[in-house]
This record gives sequence, C-alpha cells and structure tokens, in this order.
Amino acid sequence: MSLWGGRFETPMDPAAWRLNTSLPFDQRLALQDVRGSMAWANALAQAGVLTAEEQGQIVAGLRIIEGEFREGKFVFSETDEDIHSAVERRLTELIGPLGGKLHSGRSRNDQVATDLRLWLLDNLPHLREALRAFQQTLVERAEQDLEVLLPGYTHWQRAQVITLGHWWLAHFWPLQRDRQRLAQLAERVAVLPLGSGALAGTPFAIDRHALAAELGFRLPAPNSLDAVADRDFVAEFLFCAALIGVHLSRLAEGVTLFTSAEFGFFELDDAFATGSSLMPQKKNPDLFELARGKSGALIGYLSGLLTTLKGLASAYDKDLQEDKPPLFAAFDALMSLLPPLQEALRTLRLHPERMREALEDALMATDLADYFVERGIPFRQAHTLVGKAMRLALERAQRLSQLSLDDYRSLLDTSHRLSLDESLYAVFDPRRSVARRNAWGGTSPQAVRAQLEQARQALNSL
Amino acid sequence: MSLWGGRFETPMDPAAWRLNTSLPFDQRLALQDVRGSMAWANALAQAGVLTAEEQGQIVAGLRIIEGEFREGKFVFSETDEDIHSAVERRLTELIGPLGGKLHSGRSRNDQVATDLRLWLLDNLPHLREALRAFQQTLVERAEQDLEVLLPGYTHWQRAQVITLGHWWLAHFWPLQRDRQRLAQLAERVAVLPLGSGALAGTPFAIDRHALAAELGFRLPAPNSLDAVADRDFVAEFLFCAALIGVHLSRLAEGVTLFTSAEFGFFELDDAFATGSSLMPQKKNPDLFELARGKSGALIGYLSGLLTTLKGLASAYDKDLQEDKPPLFAAFDALMSLLPPLQEALRTLRLHPERMREALEDALMATDLADYFVERGIPFRQAHTLVGKAMRLALERAQRLSQLSLDDYRSLLDTSHRLSLDESLYAVFDPRRSVARRNAWGGTSPQAVRAQLEQARQALNSL
Amino acid sequence: MSLWGGRFETPMDPAAWRLNTSLPFDQRLALQDVRGSMAWANALAQAGVLTAEEQGQIVAGLRIIEGEFREGKFVFSETDEDIHSAVERRLTELIGPLGGKLHSGRSRNDQVATDLRLWLLDNLPHLREALRAFQQTLVERAEQDLEVLLPGYTHWQRAQVITLGHWWLAHFWPLQRDRQRLAQLAERVAVLPLGSGALAGTPFAIDRHALAAELGFRLPAPNSLDAVADRDFVAEFLFCAALIGVHLSRLAEGVTLFTSAEFGFFELDDAFATGSSLMPQKKNPDLFELARGKSGALIGYLSGLLTTLKGLASAYDKDLQEDKPPLFAAFDALMSLLPPLQEALRTLRLHPERMREALEDALMATDLADYFVERGIPFRQAHTLVGKAMRLALERAQRLSQLSLDDYRSLLDTSHRLSLDESLYAVFDPRRSVARRNAWGGTSPQAVRAQLEQARQALNSL
Amino acid sequence: MSLWGGRFETPMDPAAWRLNTSLPFDQRLALQDVRGSMAWANALAQAGVLTAEEQGQIVAGLRIIEGEFREGKFVFSETDEDIHSAVERRLTELIGPLGGKLHSGRSRNDQVATDLRLWLLDNLPHLREALRAFQQTLVERAEQDLEVLLPGYTHWQRAQVITLGHWWLAHFWPLQRDRQRLAQLAERVAVLPLGSGALAGTPFAIDRHALAAELGFRLPAPNSLDAVADRDFVAEFLFCAALIGVHLSRLAEGVTLFTSAEFGFFELDDAFATGSSLMPQKKNPDLFELARGKSGALIGYLSGLLTTLKGLASAYDKDLQEDKPPLFAAFDALMSLLPPLQEALRTLRLHPERMREALEDALMATDLADYFVERGIPFRQAHTLVGKAMRLALERAQRLSQLSLDDYRSLLDTSHRLSLDESLYAVFDPRRSVARRNAWGGTSPQAVRAQLEQARQALNSL
Repeated sequence: MSLWGGRFETPMDPAAWRLNTSLPFDQRLALQDVRGSMAWANALAQAGVLTAEEQGQIVAGLRIIEGEFREGKFVFSETDEDIHSAVERRLTELIGPLGGKLHSGRSRNDQVATDLRLWLLDNLPHLREALRAFQQTLVERAEQDLEVLLPGYTHWQRAQVITLGHWWLAHFWPLQRDRQRLAQLAERVAVLPLGSGALAGTPFAIDRHALAAELGFRLPAPNSLDAVADRDFVAEFLFCAALIGVHLSRLAEGVTLFTSAEFGFFELDDAFATGSSLMPQKKNPDLFELARGKSGALIGYLSGLLTTLKGLASAYDKDLQEDKPPLFAAFDALMSLLPPLQEALRTLRLHPERMREALEDALMATDLADYFVERGIPFRQAHTLVGKAMRLALERAQRLSQLSLDDYRSLLDTSHRLSLDESLYAVFDPRRSVARRNAWGGTSPQAVRAQLEQARQALNSL
Repeated sequence: MSLWGGRFETPMDPAAWRLNTSLPFDQRLALQDVRGSMAWANALAQAGVLTAEEQGQIVAGLRIIEGEFREGKFVFSETDEDIHSAVERRLTELIGPLGGKLHSGRSRNDQVATDLRLWLLDNLPHLREALRAFQQTLVERAEQDLEVLLPGYTHWQRAQVITLGHWWLAHFWPLQRDRQRLAQLAERVAVLPLGSGALAGTPFAIDRHALAAELGFRLPAPNSLDAVADRDFVAEFLFCAALIGVHLSRLAEGVTLFTSAEFGFFELDDAFATGSSLMPQKKNPDLFELARGKSGALIGYLSGLLTTLKGLASAYDKDLQEDKPPLFAAFDALMSLLPPLQEALRTLRLHPERMREALEDALMATDLADYFVERGIPFRQAHTLVGKAMRLALERAQRLSQLSLDDYRSLLDTSHRLSLDESLYAVFDPRRSVARRNAWGGTSPQAVRAQLEQARQALNSL
Repeated sequence: MSLWGGRFETPMDPAAWRLNTSLPFDQRLALQDVRGSMAWANALAQAGVLTAEEQGQIVAGLRIIEGEFREGKFVFSETDEDIHSAVERRLTELIGPLGGKLHSGRSRNDQVATDLRLWLLDNLPHLREALRAFQQTLVERAEQDLEVLLPGYTHWQRAQVITLGHWWLAHFWPLQRDRQRLAQLAERVAVLPLGSGALAGTPFAIDRHALAAELGFRLPAPNSLDAVADRDFVAEFLFCAALIGVHLSRLAEGVTLFTSAEFGFFELDDAFATGSSLMPQKKNPDLFELARGKSGALIGYLSGLLTTLKGLASAYDKDLQEDKPPLFAAFDALMSLLPPLQEALRTLRLHPERMREALEDALMATDLADYFVERGIPFRQAHTLVGKAMRLALERAQRLSQLSLDDYRSLLDTSHRLSLDESLYAVFDPRRSVARRNAWGGTSPQAVRAQLEQARQALNSL
Repeated sequence: MSLWGGRFETPMDPAAWRLNTSLPFDQRLALQDVRGSMAWANALAQAGVLTAEEQGQIVAGLRIIEGEFREGKFVFSETDEDIHSAVERRLTELIGPLGGKLHSGRSRNDQVATDLRLWLLDNLPHLREALRAFQQTLVERAEQDLEVLLPGYTHWQRAQVITLGHWWLAHFWPLQRDRQRLAQLAERVAVLPLGSGALAGTPFAIDRHALAAELGFRLPAPNSLDAVADRDFVAEFLFCAALIGVHLSRLAEGVTLFTSAEFGFFELDDAFATGSSLMPQKKNPDLFELARGKSGALIGYLSGLLTTLKGLASAYDKDLQEDKPPLFAAFDALMSLLPPLQEALRTLRLHPERMREALEDALMATDLADYFVERGIPFRQAHTLVGKAMRLALERAQRLSQLSLDDYRSLLDTSHRLSLDESLYAVFDPRRSVARRNAWGGTSPQAVRAQLEQARQALNSL
C-alpha cells in the first residue's frame, strides 16, 4: 500500500516502483520503526489527538507487529513502498481504519530520520564493544610481548630497536581515538527528529522533550527543517568507519609483511590463514589483506555520501534515501572484520629469533651518535661522523661494531680528537638501546609498562 | 570444500571463514566460471594434459553444472569458499576424482580475472543498449519539442532564449561520449588473463591465442604478473559509471527544477511521480532525485576501488576480492535508473505557456547589444550601454522594450549618437533571437535540425 | 643544507631534489618550527644535554630567526630541504656549530608532527571564529525576517508554509555541529609528539609533560611510534572542512535558486554579485556557486588524504609529507568563503511580495487534512480525501479554497458525511498554518523565538 | 577591469573579489587565450563582423601581448578578474576602443572551455612522452635483468620463481594502457567549444569548422549548451592521472620493499635516496614513497571534480571555475614524479645473491605437484599431497628437497603408489621452474623475450 494515492490518477510504473522502493534495505529498521511509532502513539494521546482507547489499540497492534518482526514472521507485501508503509499497512490490517490515525502530525521525513538514529544508537554500542575487545587483545599482546625486541622501521628501512609491546600499543591508541570519536558522535545522534513533521513542525501539541526521553534521545532537534534534512550523523559515522578502516589497514600491512618469509617475525595460526588453489605451500594472510582492501570501500562510502549530500537545499530530497546502504555496509564491514582479526592477533605465534637476527648494528647508529654527543660533539657533527663510519663499514662489508677505535678516530675532526675507548662498543647492545628511550611514550620496557597502565585506564574510560 | 587443505593442520575459524568467503557476491559469475572452465578443459586437452576422453567427461560435467545454474537448481554447500570452489566441488561430485584434473596449470588468480572480464563483456552491451535507448528518447523529445522556446540559464539566471530541442540534445551528447568510452573500454576488457597461472604463467603448452579466441577475447594478456593483478578495467568501468551518474544528475537537477511550481515548465506523468505520506497535494520527482543521489554512490565506488588498488604490489593480493561488490553495485544502479528515467522523460508533459511567460525582454539584452555592434559600436561599449539601460529599466520597474528611443539615446556617448529608430524593438522578439544563433551547434531551429541529423548518426555509430 | 650528508657518496639528483623538497609548502610552518625548537632547547637544558649558556645562545639565535620570519626577511637557500633544515642552517650561520646541538634526541619526524599540530592549534580559532561570525549573521537575519512567510519545499515542490526566520536557523544548526566537532578535534590535536624521536622515543631525560605544557598542549603523546605516524587529526580536520563545505553548498544552492527570476525571493547586493562578459542584463550569484563548487574540492581533499594514509605501516613513511597541501588548501578555501558569503547574506534584499504570491492554497493541504482529523476522520483517509480534492481542483484549474462545501462533501465516504461548514476555509490562511506548528522546533513565530534564544546560547557556548 | 560594469551600481566587495577572481590560476592559460583570440578575430573578419583592417590591428595587438607573456613582461592589473579580462584590457590599452570589438559573439564561457582544451592539447604530449620515456627505461631494465631470478609473490608470500625481466614488464603494460587512454582522451579534448557563445550559440555567421581547423581541433562541438558546460574531459584526464598514480604506487611499494634490509634485492643510487636528520645509517626511498603518497591526492582530485560537477544543470555555473586547480595539480604531480623515478630505476643496483638466497624449495611446490600430475595423479590430489609434504617438512624444519622418496611415497594414496625416482628432485631447480612457464605471457626467459618484442612495438605504437 502506498501512503499517498489520492491525488494520482494512475499507479506507478513498475520499473519506477522498483527504483523508488527502499524496502530492500530499510526493512532493517523494522524494530526501530515500530518503537518510534509506539512512542508517537503515546505522544499523540498525550496531545489529545488520540483517545486512551485508541492509543491502547494502536500500541497493542504495534506490539503484535514487533513480535512478527522478532520472530521473522512479518510478511511484506509487494505494494509496501518502504518499512513505514509496511508497518502502517499491517497495523490497519490488524486494527482497522484506526491504524490510519497513527500518522497524524507525522511524516515519513521525520520518521525515517528517527528510525535511522535509533538504529545507530542501538548499534553503535556493538561496534564500540568490538573495538574495545580488539584493543583488549592488543593490550594483552603488549603485556605478553613486552620485552621482545625487534627492529623499528621508518620508510620500511630499519631505524631503531623497539620492543614489540610498544609496537602493539602503537595500534591501540588510534582505536582509542576512534572510540572517543564514536562516543562523541553518539551524543550528536541522540537528537530527536520526530515531531518535525514533513519539514515545518507538527501542528499538534506534542511534548517533544518527553518524546525524546521516552525514546532515549538527549533532546529534540531544535529546527524542524534541519531535523529532516540532517544526515551529518551518517557522514560522521562513515568518517569514523573510514578512519577505523585506515587504522586496520595499517596494522594489516604490518602483519602481512611481518608474516612474509623475508621478515618472518610473525606466523598466523592455521585457523586464520588461507591457502592457494594452485600452490600447495602457500599460507596467506587473507584476513589482513581484506582489512586493508576494505578500507578502500569504507573511504568510498564516505566520499559517496558526502557527494550525495552536496547541494541539497530543499528540506527533504529523495536523494537522502541513499544514506542507508553505505551506513549499513560500513557497519557490517567493520563488524565482520574486527572479531576474526582480533582472534588472529591473539593466536599469532612469534619468531623472536628472526627478530633478534634482524637487530643489526646499524640500528644503533643513533645511539653511537648520542655517544659522541655525550662527549661534547654537537649532534649534527656526530651525525655526519657516524654517517661516514656507516659508509666505511659498507665499503668494507663490515658491521659498525667491527670498525676499530682507530677507524672511528680517523673520522673525527682534529678539533674533536677525543680519547675514545672501548666503552663505545657498548652502544651496540640492543637492550641498552631500548632502555635508553625511557622518556614518557618511549619504547623502553619501563616506559611501556607505564604506557600499559595508561592503556588499561583508557580501555575502561569510554 | 576448500581447495587448499593439505598444508593446514586445522580448519578455518568460522568468523574468519565468513569474512573470507566471496561466494555471496561472486556466485554472480557462475556462468562465466563454467564457460571459462570448459575452454580451459579444451586447452588442456590440446596441450596433452587431458586425454580426449577426460576432456569429454569434464565438459559434460560442466554442461550439467551450467544447466543447474541456468535453472536455479545448483545447490551451494556451506563449505564452498567461492564460485570456483563450488564448481570444482560439484564437478567432482558428478564425475569423480577426474574433476580434480581441471585445475592443472590454472589458478583462481587467473580464473577470477577471466570470469570478471567475461561477465563485463557479457553485460556491457546491456548497459550500452540502455544508454542508446535513453538517447533515442532524447532525440525523439528533441524532434517533438524542436521549436518550443524557453529561457536558457547560466548560474540559474535567465540568460538567452533557447529551443527546447536544443536543451534535450545538450543531454544527448554527454551520453554519446559515455557510450564511446564504454566501447573503448570493451576493447581493453577483452584481453585474456587465463593461462597466467597464479602469477608466473602456466607450465603447460597452452595455446593462449586459441583460448582467447574461443572465449571471445581479442588477445591473451602479454604478462602473467600483470594479468592477475590488473583491475584497471574495473576502475575504468567505475569511472564511466560515475560519469554517467554525473550526467544523469545534471539532467535530473534540471528536470527537478523545471517541474517545480516556480518554473512550471514540465509536468511528470503520474506513473513516474510519487506522493507524500503527510502532504496530500505533493507530486514529487523522486526518480530524478534518486538519479542525482545515486551519483554520489557511484563516485564513491570509483574512489573506493582506486583506493583499494593503491599500493598493491604483490602480483595478487586478496584485497582484489573487493573489486566485485562495487562493480556489480554500479552496474545495477545504472540499469535500475536508465529505463524508468527514460520513460519518465518520454511521457513528460510540457507547459509551453509557462515557458513563454518566462521569456522576458532581458533575455534579449545580448541581441540588443549586437544591434549596436551592427551599427559600429564596439561590443564592449555596447555591453556597457545595455547594462545601463537594464539598470534604468529596473529602477523604473520597466522592461527593456518599454524604454523609449530617447532613453536609449541618452545612454549613448556623444561619439555614438546614432540615428536610432524603431527597428531597435525588433530585437525583443524571442523567435528572432533564437533564429540568429544559427552557426553550427547553435540553438536556432535550423541549426538544431542539422544537429539532430548528427545525433541520429551518432546513435547508430557505436 | 641537507641534514644527512655523511653516509652518502653523491648529492641528490636535481629532479629528485625538487620532488623531495617540501619547502614550497612547509615554510608556512616557520613560526611553529621556531617555537617548537625554542621549547626543545629548553627541554634539552632541563635534561642536562645543553648547558644554560648553550640554551641561551640557541634561544637567542632562534629569536632572531623568528624576527626574520615575522618581518619577511628570512632568506631561504636553494639547499634547504624543508623548513626544519632551513631553520637549523640559519641557526648555525648565526651561532656557529653550537646550532648543531639543537637536534639532539629529536627527529624531523616528531618535529614536523609537532609543527603541524601547533599550526592547527594556532589556526583553528580563526576558523571557529569565522564560523561563529557567520552564524551570528544567520541569527540576525532570523530575527529580522522572523515573520516573513514563504513556501517551504521538499523535493523542490512546495510543501508547507514556513517562516523565513526558521529557514535561516535551519542553516545555523549545521554550523553549530561543525563548531562542536572542531572544538572536540582541538582536544585531539593538543597531544604533543615532540620527544618521540624518529620513532622509538628520545634517549634523553626529557620531561615531556613540561614540554607539552610549555607549548600549550594538553598532554604528551603516549606512544612514540603512533606519535610520528598519526595524521588522524589532519583527516578529522579535513572531514570537518568537507562537512562545512557541504553545509555551505546546501545554503548556496538555496540562495542561488531563491535569487533566480523564477523564485525571485532574494536579491543580492551589487557588491556581492557578478556580471557577464557577454550578456549585459546578468547578475549572477557567483560567490554562492563557488561555495557549492568548492565543496567538491573539500571532499576530494578528505578522500585523498585518507587514501594516502591507507596501508602505511612503517612508523614514518614519506607519504605523510602529503598531509600539508590538502590541510592548507582546505583551511584557505573556508577562510576565503566564509566572510564574503556572510556579508552577502547580511546585505541580501528580500522580495516578500514574491514569497507571498507563492503561498498557494495547496501549501495548506495538510492543514486541510488535519481539519478532517480534528473531526474524527483517521489521518490516512483524510489524506486521501484531500488528495482527491486536489485532483478535482487541478482538473478544474481551481484552487483548493475555490472548491465548494458540496465538492468536499461529495468526496467524503458516507460514513464520514460530516456537517461541514465555512470554518473549513480558515485553513487556507498561511499565518494560521505556521502558527499551528508551534511544538518545539516548529516554524511558528513563537517557536522560532524560543529557538532563537537557544541559538544565541549555542553561539556563546563554544 | 571587469568586463561587466554597466548594470551594477557599486563595485564588488574586496573579499568577494578575492574569492571570485580566477587569475591566480588561470593565468597559466595566457598563451592559449591569446591564440584562441587571434583565431576568433580571424573568424569575425570572415563573418564580416570585423573589417580586414580591424582584424589586422587586433591580431597585431594580440601578437604584442603574446610576446609579453612569452618574455614574462606582461603586467597584470589588480582589476583583472581573470586571464580573459586581462588580455582584453591590455589589448584595449594597446589599440584603443577597437579592442572592445573582439568579444563580439563570444563569451568567457566558450572562451575558457576553449583555452582549457587548448592547454590540455598542448600539454598532453608532454605527459605521454614522459610516460613513454619511463616505459623505455622499464624495457631496458627488462632486457638487462632478463635472466635474473627472484621469488614472485602473491599476498607477499613467496609463490613461484620469476625472472626480473618479467617483473619489470609487469609494470610496463599498465602504463601502456594509460598511454592508450590518454590518446583516446586527446580525441575527445579536440572538440571546439568556441563559437558557442554564452550558451545559445553565436549570432554571427562564424564558420566553426574552419575555426576548429585553425586551432587544431578535430571538429566543433555539436551543441552550444553542452559545449560550455562539458568538463568531462577534465574528469577523464583526472581519472587517467589517478590511475597512473595507482600504477606508480604499486611499483613504488614494490621498490620500497625490495630495497628494505629484509628483502635486500634492490639498492638505490645515492643520488635518488635520502637520509635521516637523526639516524645516520638511514638510506630511504623517499621518492617512491612520495609516488605512493601522491596517488592519494590524485584520487582525491578526481573524486573532488566529479563531486563539483554533480548536479550542475544550468549551462554554465561558476562552480566550473573549480576545474582548473585539480587539473593543473594532477598534471604537475605526474610531471614531477616521472623523470626522477625513471632515473632512479635506471640507476638501481641489484643484489642477485640476495634474490638467489630467497629461492627456497617451497617456491617449486607447484612444480612438484605438476610432477605428480604428469604421472597421472589429478591435480587436486597432487596439490593435497604436496601440501602434506610441506607440512611434514615444516615439522621437521627441513626443505622439500630434503624429504626422502620414502617420505613422498608415504604420502601417496595406495591407489597412486607410483614408482617414484630421483627425477623428482629435478623440480627444485629454479631455472627449470621458470623455463617451464613458457606459454605466451609466462615468465620463462624465452617467453619474456617475445614479450619484450611486443613491448617495443607497443612503445612505438602510440
């Protein structure tokens, strides 16, 4: 049943109908639609538009419908244009023409905006919890791998020694920012459109503050035109989702490379790896590649929706119907990714010996420069000096620790001809290198322990 | 059945499996997968890897599977990882272990790239035909509305008089460019990956040129690494789709505004308009708004896929699995839009009287300036002169044609004190105004007739 | 001067240098770089790495450099790779080799992240103030135009009567959400990377909490790897900018159409409109079109940066250098748009008579339906009834108020044959229609006055 | 000098002016603007609008202006709104009021579209040549490194042995597709807008075919409305640029990883690498990271412009002014990337010994499966069998070639108890492995030689 036949001479063209109907995706809002309708019936009764008896019958009918949805027994009709039409149609089947009173002073414009916000308010906690659980695993890995040393990279070149605990936590904090953003978003979602009518407000004496409270919103939307047009919250959710996707893609790239033969630091559990239909030896990190790949789609959903919103100036334009597919797709993508990725990380095996092998002397080049700094050479000259030592070592196919004190002396300016001694070689101890980076936020085990404390607090703070 | 059990100790984690499986969307490639497999069986036989009898049994099994797909009787198993696994699993059920010979020298990497190209080659003609049919309607409208005059706009300000036929054809040519791009794309799609193996080529003596010919491709891909990694054709399709979306959005914006009460030039047939659940008088151009809105999603699919492809450097990365959802979604969006929009345009009613009312004198201001140009005044001065006349008219709340010759004389420099006469007022005839714009590509009915001829040729040229 | 010569045998290739240098855009960070360097010198002194005298000389040198930047007298050298190199080079020119001590325990990785956050902390207030000023103008317009009636639109079809004050405020609230997001972003920007070194932390006993306080940050970044890699704040800024762009585009589309001849509701002051080089009569809303057009670029900056960030897994990758151009471009675009648009709105002239003319009876169709609802007819039937009345009126080329009571009676079911009377025709009074929409957030003047009060509070709340 | 003062009472507000002016970026079209103006003067003369003498004076004036631009002596005025206004202003300074005749029958709408197309036609060859030169280097590397063996990867897991020549050519073909697309784009660019006036066509008897020929266009645009509104060619260029960016990003990711310590296959020449300000040992592949990073911006330009174009329905909207910044930025990005990247590849040093070390037995697992296939075991069983062998080898920390024949026998089903012999171990020869992949497009040196021949032809074909 379409809700608007009266003015029209002919029914809709079938192809036009198929294009126009939103039921294939908005039926996901069924429970929210019913819940919102119950609250509206109550509000209409309070405003004197429905009698107590009418209210009772309508709410009873809606409860039946709610049950049908919950039990998967609701039968859609080919003539249902959208979830709102389906619910009103069914209500009228159940309680007769009285069902037609429910839509008084309400429009699908404020109704769908309310449904979608309700849906997001219902579902954001699931995403936030999935993120929290994921972070929990990162914290556990960090605790467990706190003292494991491996090379840190910049530009994918070995840079300085780090602890693996520090590396895991480097992926914790971005997700913490994500959860914080989602928490702030939730506040903005919890603004109620219902009672805005089609665009100009409702003509009945609806107490919108009470209505908001009943439905779990913080407050009613302050402007009816804005209320039916506003999809900022969808855009903001898609931004949050895209950024979560980016964060997962960065972690995924790291895991993908660390499980390669060349790095060999990590090994996936068989339950979280896949094979090849052709190459029997292959063990592939497909899950992580999918995380990386899906970040593209997530970014696309965001730019797609922003583009859809651009230039819409009439309070409600049908273009807004295009808000739901990307919202649902982004939500589903993240919810399908987070749990298996989390479990894959939890069950990951380490190859610390491969990490140890990778801790070549050059990773301590900055420590060596610092050694000279501590002896009074300005850092910039110390840097140049170690750079030259590095070149010398490369030419001789030696390691930095294999250069003699005389080699080092020969590289010093006469002005800095220090009395070098064997203490220099202590810089090549990777444990010493990480231990030195002990300021707040650094990679030393001690600093990481403090960071872990922070992380645990952060985990429970949102 | 997964195709790669041997090396693994444990089966996949269920959540990981759900994330990993592509069957929910790649089953759309079923017929292409079977077709490609038949051709591969033939190629293996030619290369001596299969006997003629083996080939016969395999092809016969595949024909049964093809039939099952066509009749909707194919039963997927929960253990089918993707369409390729499903087909091989079913083949082995039908013909026994011999089914396991089909995958010799082939990988899902070259197989899925082949399937997807086949699918696009099968389906591009449908899109091109839908576009052609849409253009045909624009041509018919242009013929029918050839001499209808209306204001042309720039910046949504009335600019100069145009013919409606010209306006319709302004929306024809962008789609012609789209069809041309799709035709050129089809050439690039028709390059065969099959025979590239996982990445390094096939070790059997496959005649890939013959294989390409059998499957309707122009030629085999020249490099196996590129062949399995290349999704340029998907990106290019999504670009074409996004640009078609933009073109439809521009037309849609125009129709939306022309059907507003303020313009009132167009009226949609009831079969292609929708009403409001609240406001009984409403008749909304939802279809056109959906076209405009969906252009956002189409742009998002494109930027999403390009982002997914960015930085992939290993010949085949699982990220590439994310190519299919946007491809199918973009294709479906266009195929759902084009026919009803076309029909909505075909059945559109005009309100020529509203267009006529809108043909105010100011639309002929350029003609008036040209009038002075023809009398020797440089255009720039003529422009200034008419601008001042316009200001004078606005101050007096008059039309340009209501200014007297003395008014006009007063605005001329003494150096240009021409002997003006009543012939000046002829410029305010809208028919004269359009007739003057008679150079190639202009809006005069005569020029539009020539343009229509070109359009008809273009329609049949691709 | 490059900061890293020692290890290299040959200087950089000139074309490679040009590609690599970031000076053309990062010189915009000059003052922030100097400020951060002063704080770092202080921190090094506190940590005992510099003596008080060294600290004094370095800070004095930096003050000179700061002065040179402020006065536009700083001379860049062709060999300056970036702003950091330029400052260190100049410092060494001014104070000798001691300048080379400044970079102890610091890296350009934490330095540039700090500079960029400082820049944003310095500049976000300008943007927030520009938005606030813009909102202030919207509030003033709303006060001034509070009781002006015009049609409200959905789908660009006339829907219901609204007040212009309500319309202005519909554009106020989106910007309020934008400002709120920017305020929350500022908290996330104010997390200090400095002291994170290249990736692993600084080896000196830097008090990063003190350093953060000195530079006006809330707290030091908790993880050095994350600190140098994190560009979430740039992405979030670009999202905020894109959404502001979308909001401006929606307002701009509205103004563009309302200034068209067809609507004729608004007229731009000459100082905020442009003309045509060809058509003397034209007065175009270019500024608003530019706002709408630039929203595209803003969305592009966002998706571009997110794409750049995708898949980066090594703590610092040079890709991150691409963060600054879109950040600066987005900021500049908004700062160039907001003031002239604001002034254009402030100086806008209204044509209330055109708005009044547009208030046709059909805008009150919902009020008419409500009339029947109040007489006990369920809304859905009332809707159908008015829809039929609308069709009847269209057939007769009449207005709804021109239908007789008998006409209306004839459309009622026998069951609802009410005793209709002349009170029906009161629904066609537009003032009554807006007055009825008096619930919180509605368009009635009384409700808008309450909304204005809220808006004024919101204006001062952030 | 603005070109449209007459109708306006007040000059433009300064902030509005700054927002509105396009001179900062469109001055790049100076030479094209002059060239187009000369052709227009000739066309006006042919149409009888200018006398031969007027034509001569105008063209002479334009030649002077052209010289001023070429020599960098043209002086812009603060009142120049855009490049078109600047040229007309200067022309009038040079030749007096006659300069004002040039704009007869022309508009900035058709003028700027013409200028931009001319600019692209002038500059596309430079980009195509830069791509061709880049491809040439890939061909040379492929020739040089034809027989160098290294692991091929999928999912960044070692997959099968390949030749480095094959790898280089895998990056050749994507660029060949890019050049092909650019060539096809050039055809679409070469459609002339000039003579379309503001939107409705020109009222003078301009021979637009002759005009097109004079300016080097294929043909005049067939529809004046479309001609001034069409920016498809900019979008298509930006798509081509984005895809080139993606291709470079994929190559760049490969080079970045191959130059890491863990892979160690490639070493950049010092002239194409950069160091660290902090870590003296670092040698970073910044150029390649910038290529990867800039692909984000390029994708952003594309989605930005498409978004700008979406929904524009009036023939010319000022939004279109936003077409130039992304076009120029994308072009410049590619032209800054291609030459140094090309040279970096040309001068790259190989470490074949590191590649050789990486050729572990597991890379021949498919060859081993094929060995069983050749002995009659269906591929799927052979795959499982080798998978089990792989697991066995991993458990024993052995290589596949270290498993005994009895080990292999034990894994065979009784039904397949073949008489295995030592010939099995031949499969572990990497040279044999690549030589087997000899079908068209495969990695065998012989096949790559044939591919090189194709590549050389392709290089010269466009």
